[in-house]
Amino acid sequence: MTLQKTGFFSCPTQVRFGVNAIDGLRDILGDGGWRNVLCVVDPALVDSKIMTRIAAVAEAAGVTLTQFSEIDPEPKDKSVVAGAALCQTQKSEAIIALGGGSAIDVAKTIGILATNGGVVADLEGVDRFSIAPLPLIAIPSTAGTGSEVSGAAVITDTARNVKMAIRHARFGPAMHAILDPLAISTVPAHVAVHAGVDAFVHAFESYLSKLANPWSDAVNLHAMRLISENIRPYVANRENTQAALGMQNGSALAALSFGTTGLGNVHCMAMVLGSRYPVPHGLANAVCLPHAARFNLIANPARFGDVARVMGMNVRGVPEREAAQMGLDAIGTLCDDLSVPKRLRDLDVTEDSLDTMAKHAFQLNYNRWNPRHTTEADFISMFRSAY
Amino acid sequence: MTLQKTGFFSCPTQVRFGVNAIDGLRDILGDGGWRNVLCVVDPALVDSKIMTRIAAVAEAAGVTLTQFSEIDPEPKDKSVVAGAALCQTQKSEAIIALGGGSAIDVAKTIGILATNGGVVADLEGVDRFSIAPLPLIAIPSTAGTGSEVSGAAVITDTARNVKMAIRHARFGPAMHAILDPLAISTVPAHVAVHAGVDAFVHAFESYLSKLANPWSDAVNLHAMRLISENIRPYVANRENTQAALGMQNGSALAALSFGTTGLGNVHCMAMVLGSRYPVPHGLANAVCLPHAARFNLIANPARFGDVARVMGMNVRGVPEREAAQMGLDAIGTLCDDLSVPKRLRDLDVTEDSLDTMAKHAFQLNYNRWNPRHTTEADFISMFRSAY
Repeated sequence: MTLQKTGFFSCPTQVRFGVNAIDGLRDILGDGGWRNVLCVVDPALVDSKIMTRIAAVAEAAGVTLTQFSEIDPEPKDKSVVAGAALCQTQKSEAIIALGGGSAIDVAKTIGILATNGGVVADLEGVDRFSIAPLPLIAIPSTAGTGSEVSGAAVITDTARNVKMAIRHARFGPAMHAILDPLAISTVPAHVAVHAGVDAFVHAFESYLSKLANPWSDAVNLHAMRLISENIRPYVANRENTQAALGMQNGSALAALSFGTTGLGNVHCMAMVLGSRYPVPHGLANAVCLPHAARFNLIANPARFGDVARVMGMNVRGVPEREAAQMGLDAIGTLCDDLSVPKRLRDLDVTEDSLDTMAKHAFQLNYNRWNPRHTTEADFISMFRSAY
Repeated sequence: MTLQKTGFFSCPTQVRFGVNAIDGLRDILGDGGWRNVLCVVDPALVDSKIMTRIAAVAEAAGVTLTQFSEIDPEPKDKSVVAGAALCQTQKSEAIIALGGGSAIDVAKTIGILATNGGVVADLEGVDRFSIAPLPLIAIPSTAGTGSEVSGAAVITDTARNVKMAIRHARFGPAMHAILDPLAISTVPAHVAVHAGVDAFVHAFESYLSKLANPWSDAVNLHAMRLISENIRPYVANRENTQAALGMQNGSALAALSFGTTGLGNVHCMAMVLGSRYPVPHGLANAVCLPHAARFNLIANPARFGDVARVMGMNVRGVPEREAAQMGLDAIGTLCDDLSVPKRLRDLDVTEDSLDTMAKHAFQLNYNRWNPRHTTEADFISMFRSAY
């Protein structure tokens, strides 16, 4: 069941997880010895319980927090520049980020700019800076992107109106991540669905990738298991701390390896959808997932059987093709249980845009590690099937 | 199946793995920009193929290697002092370690001493130094200890004749690890067995620990699977690169979390055995494993069933207690297949030492996270059962 390829693994982030994990912030601040810390916080969480806990820990540690909440859902370079300027005037020695992927990505990039100088646009690409950024403590308020452990940040270049990916295997990841269920207990149900399915797709596509390896398999199999076991009770009741924690651990595990294995057709289609329509990234993933998965099944039926197994299906002794189908069915049931819209037309996507989106998806080449070779015609079929 | 506890995870080591992974050394040396590198190499590997490859890569990169092979099987502080002195005279900027746990542990401690100064005895314990050690590139020549990714080193204090554990979550782990099957292709069969079972026990005891958590579960379940799938063909033929790589990945994964979850009764018994008799650590683990495992079964039958599953047994639909027994049986079959001696008497252990060893095992308190509460009388029973 294990592909044997040359590969790479690392998790430089020190991850603390559990009920009251936020109390670990005391040790982090104590060890750091910082006096001035920038706190990048999602505007919706400024008055939250988790923010109150953070403020209390910081005060007890004698740390002055400077709050910064200039964060758009699609984070922009302007926010980064403003945050970096604030860092300079406040002499910030470290950064706390509280929020979803947007807040964490802004905080990551502020930290890079603060120590490396320069302009945001020059950071686009891989290893485009050489000085360690300000130490970052990421406290995610959704269970989805996994930005708290990944080495990437996505920021919109407003001058060119393009999303830039900024990646650095060694310096990209946050120094610390704190996964406390209190931080995700007030997420609206639809956001919990979108973020959770996005995390599942990270693990699923990385597991199916041509570059999958034993290290990515370890984290992705367990991530799919944790998310499958916990997403239903978590969406039903976000104050279910056990389910919330399962989702937090699952989504972070799912983000440990897709930077090295790549993702596949689902994310490729979702990226194109998201650039043309105001559809949230997680929702775009969720709608495309069953269709892209069905297309990929013949590339690796054995691994679809593994997906069925970690999703709780009884596949022992079942013939391979049948077990693979059980994996596909389990994904369909998951989407149904979470009331994910079945069709792109339900998202106000118009039929005349499908062929253009397929063309863009094909040209993106984002799916080069997808397990099944995919032509432009294949993307047309998948978009039409999802329509 | 997942315990929900507050916990910690990190893998700061950048792990490269695969056939010809050793070629990745070129990038590491290039990125580091070092001119003088100390090469701590097991005396048995000075003329090996893997050492020849390392020397060639270093020469091509314009790096001067200073070789140091003063390493005992039970590594001593004297070696560390000698190595650190050599670092100083040669102005070494980084260290390459090629060998088993002993060579890697010596290299780790040389690197700490080189930047922090002081004496080895003062490093004993947790976080006893504060400056990052010299960058270390660990190239393990056995698939067992996992020292290439763990944050610990064990060094004998010759003045007191005790083994000291030196631990540091952030600075303890090597900066890089390279897992290339060429490095473990000439290991004698009995060493392959001892090291491999030691690695299995790391994953097994960490999975059963009272402090097991979703992150340790992810790596331990997959480590047990990889080791179970590959140890037989690897022991049969160490030049089977696929099996060798499976063992290297499995043993490294198995070492990622036992530092935070602790180990259990098997390691506790093996430590006492090893301090009284000249029995290799892995062999001591292997002989004690079935007996300590049988004692622990009632503490967590569900997890013994998981062990059965990842060891390839068909446990779906099998009642919990029966599935747990299948886990125990799979462990017994594994030891039989590898011709592990069944009894302590086969290792020249004398019967009159059993009670004393049980007393020491109980006093050690090393097993405090073992899933079943264990009295001195319990240790006597286990040692007698293993005798």
